[in-house]
Amino acid sequence: MCLVEIGLAMVEKSPDVVWHSGSVGPDERRKVTKNSPAVVWLTGLSGCGKSTIAMALELALIRSGHPAFVLDGDNLRHGLNSDLGFSAQDRTENIRRVSEVARLFADAHIIAICSFISPYRLDRRNARNRIEPHAFLEVFVDAPLNICEQRDPKQLYRKAREKLAAGTPMGFTGIDAPYEPPENPEVHVKTDVQTVDQCVESILQTLRTRRILLQGDA
Amino acid sequence: MCLVEIGLAMVEKSPDVVWHSGSVGPDERRKVTKNSPAVVWLTGLSGCGKSTIAMALELALIRSGHPAFVLDGDNLRHGLNSDLGFSAQDRTENIRRVSEVARLFADAHIIAICSFISPYRLDRRNARNRIEPHAFLEVFVDAPLNICEQRDPKQLYRKAREKLAAGTPMGFTGIDAPYEPPENPEVHVKTDVQTVDQCVESILQTLRTRRILLQGDA
Repeated sequence: MCLVEIGLAMVEKSPDVVWHSGSVGPDERRKVTKNSPAVVWLTGLSGCGKSTIAMALELALIRSGHPAFVLDGDNLRHGLNSDLGFSAQDRTENIRRVSEVARLFADAHIIAICSFISPYRLDRRNARNRIEPHAFLEVFVDAPLNICEQRDPKQLYRKAREKLAAGTPMGFTGIDAPYEPPENPEVHVKTDVQTVDQCVESILQTLRTRRILLQGDA
Repeated sequence: MCLVEIGLAMVEKSPDVVWHSGSVGPDERRKVTKNSPAVVWLTGLSGCGKSTIAMALELALIRSGHPAFVLDGDNLRHGLNSDLGFSAQDRTENIRRVSEVARLFADAHIIAICSFISPYRLDRRNARNRIEPHAFLEVFVDAPLNICEQRDPKQLYRKAREKLAAGTPMGFTGIDAPYEPPENPEVHVKTDVQTVDQCVESILQTLRTRRILLQGDA
């Protein structure tokens, strides 16, 4: 039988069969990435240190041979989520898309490090529910509001205070919009008393304890 | 100076500085993934063999040590794009989001294999324009319409013909909606005369020629 000759080279297998026989299993992915799927979700106030920890964690993972990638407001608001504003509905859609993208990265065994204020428990719970429970790490990046406001790296607290005083509140988390702290985060770091390295080490330790990083790595 | 003691452990560096000093460069990513960024974009009629080739290519890449991941209608329509239908506007938004996600994977040095009919040149050009030119491979998965219709793995051609006959056209590509073939695809495979392995090898060869796969791999 030579299906090629009758112009049907690929019709001898149904796509379903080929799909399954050709698909890549978790063991094969693990050989390449040296880790199981994981989503590390950093939540906390603006200025609490999420981005700093996210980047340092990514670097630590990459240097120990694990593909990892930071998803944050900057690289998503300019691309995938460029059509979204900051209304409550758009914020929820923002987090929904981010968590779907994080799931795709997890499916590919790339450690997705998500760095978003994500002030609402419901949104974070929805993100968690998209991922296998074992693979989701909620990290509460905790610092007192007054410290975050003192740091104010993007001068957003100053702006929010000014707007509030002028009677045009901008709905800024911690000032005139709520932040709902995690109730049972997998990791809780306090950036007013811990160094970046200590925070990163806490997260790595949890990834090791869960056997997400293969032993001997990171 | 001990900033920790005054509760400002992380304020000594501006986030921008930390961002850059902490960020992972392409060379470090390359050490882990053994490849440069790439988006392999498979386009062609329903039943032309895109999914089959996509899965086989992913497997070949993973087995040679390169993290790769298939983005296709199935894994996106059920998640990220579950809010989209099949209107012209929604189809374009579907492809826009896919190409943004592909860009994120490329930024992470994961080879993104996109498998979508993507019948319009404009949408494919927009996808291309989001990626560094060198990193984008458009693959025309070519098979004559009558062969695709004979295969009809999802029975969609049959349904489209029935609907058309009943006076309720469903806008199915190749039947009552246009397919605009690529004009200058980086790879052109013909699944009516080539085997899956031959098609995959053509793509791998192009990835090697462009030095996207580090020498000695795949």
